[in-house]
Amino acid sequence: MSSQSVADAVRARIRDVPDFPKKGILFKDVTPVLEDAALFKRLIGAMAREWKGQAIDKVVAIESRGFIFGAPLALELDAGFVIVRKPGKLPAKTLKTSYALEYGEGVLEMHEGAVRKGEKVLVVDDLLATGGTAKAAATLARGEGGEVIGYSFLVELSFLEGQRKLEGLPVKALLTY
Amino acid sequence: MSSQSVADAVRARIRDVPDFPKKGILFKDVTPVLEDAALFKRLIGAMAREWKGQAIDKVVAIESRGFIFGAPLALELDAGFVIVRKPGKLPAKTLKTSYALEYGEGVLEMHEGAVRKGEKVLVVDDLLATGGTAKAAATLARGEGGEVIGYSFLVELSFLEGQRKLEGLPVKALLTY
Repeated sequence: MSSQSVADAVRARIRDVPDFPKKGILFKDVTPVLEDAALFKRLIGAMAREWKGQAIDKVVAIESRGFIFGAPLALELDAGFVIVRKPGKLPAKTLKTSYALEYGEGVLEMHEGAVRKGEKVLVVDDLLATGGTAKAAATLARGEGGEVIGYSFLVELSFLEGQRKLEGLPVKALLTY
Repeated sequence: MSSQSVADAVRARIRDVPDFPKKGILFKDVTPVLEDAALFKRLIGAMAREWKGQAIDKVVAIESRGFIFGAPLALELDAGFVIVRKPGKLPAKTLKTSYALEYGEGVLEMHEGAVRKGEKVLVVDDLLATGGTAKAAATLARGEGGEVIGYSFLVELSFLEGQRKLEGLPVKALLTY
């Protein structure tokens, strides 16, 4: 099955939820896609195909929906799996970085030593919106000497222009709104 | 590689973090295991082997470390993937259930319709401690008519006797402390 036909099948199963997480936002709910065993498998295959043969050492995924796609992608790409979490969730010593939110700022953490100097890193999340959290994850990986080689998302909301934050690196999304 | 040798390799990589999340707790940090690509793959293989051939329809995983193991297990077992989250995180209509915490209670949610009547369900999380959250996830799956056929964890803290909450159903953990 081509990536395009997988994308079409995923698009047909994504559920629009109005006014979530707040009034005026039309939330793209991917959970119905995951519940379809065959479709979940095909979409992971399609996302992984974009990065095969690139010798990725670490997949860095962002809490918590990023884990759903990042863990299978790491396995498909024979890469190690690294988690980026909100403050206070990781038990050992961490690097921290902040990023802009609509009001105020957010902070993300990654364990020290989770990425090693020179390792090739793919940043994974479910959704590319403004790009703030994806860029923060890349900053953390670079803080340990990692080389970010690209970004993988299930969905890109292109009208938010998140790619502009991602330094011209390759950005792949299975589908775009 | 046998499940026992995978378990030994995992045990050797788990990091003990004292006094997390609070004084007196020795936290079993599995993140160094995930960072080892070959070991992550082997442990998912070993966890999946316990449930192959049981025609599991849905893997139900608990936020957020449960997603790391649940998503790959769903793919290995050709099952759909369902997420159980803390209140307010799931966008569409949910079932809710509460469970006892050391002080007070916690609440977990699952989307309505995520499990269907008669589906065979495997509950997955990283760690079995007191069993409260795993039992809550099972309660949610049953609330939609699912048949919980067992529980899969990477680690069981057997001194907390969590299995006593899990109704005598099969409980598999790759390693036990």
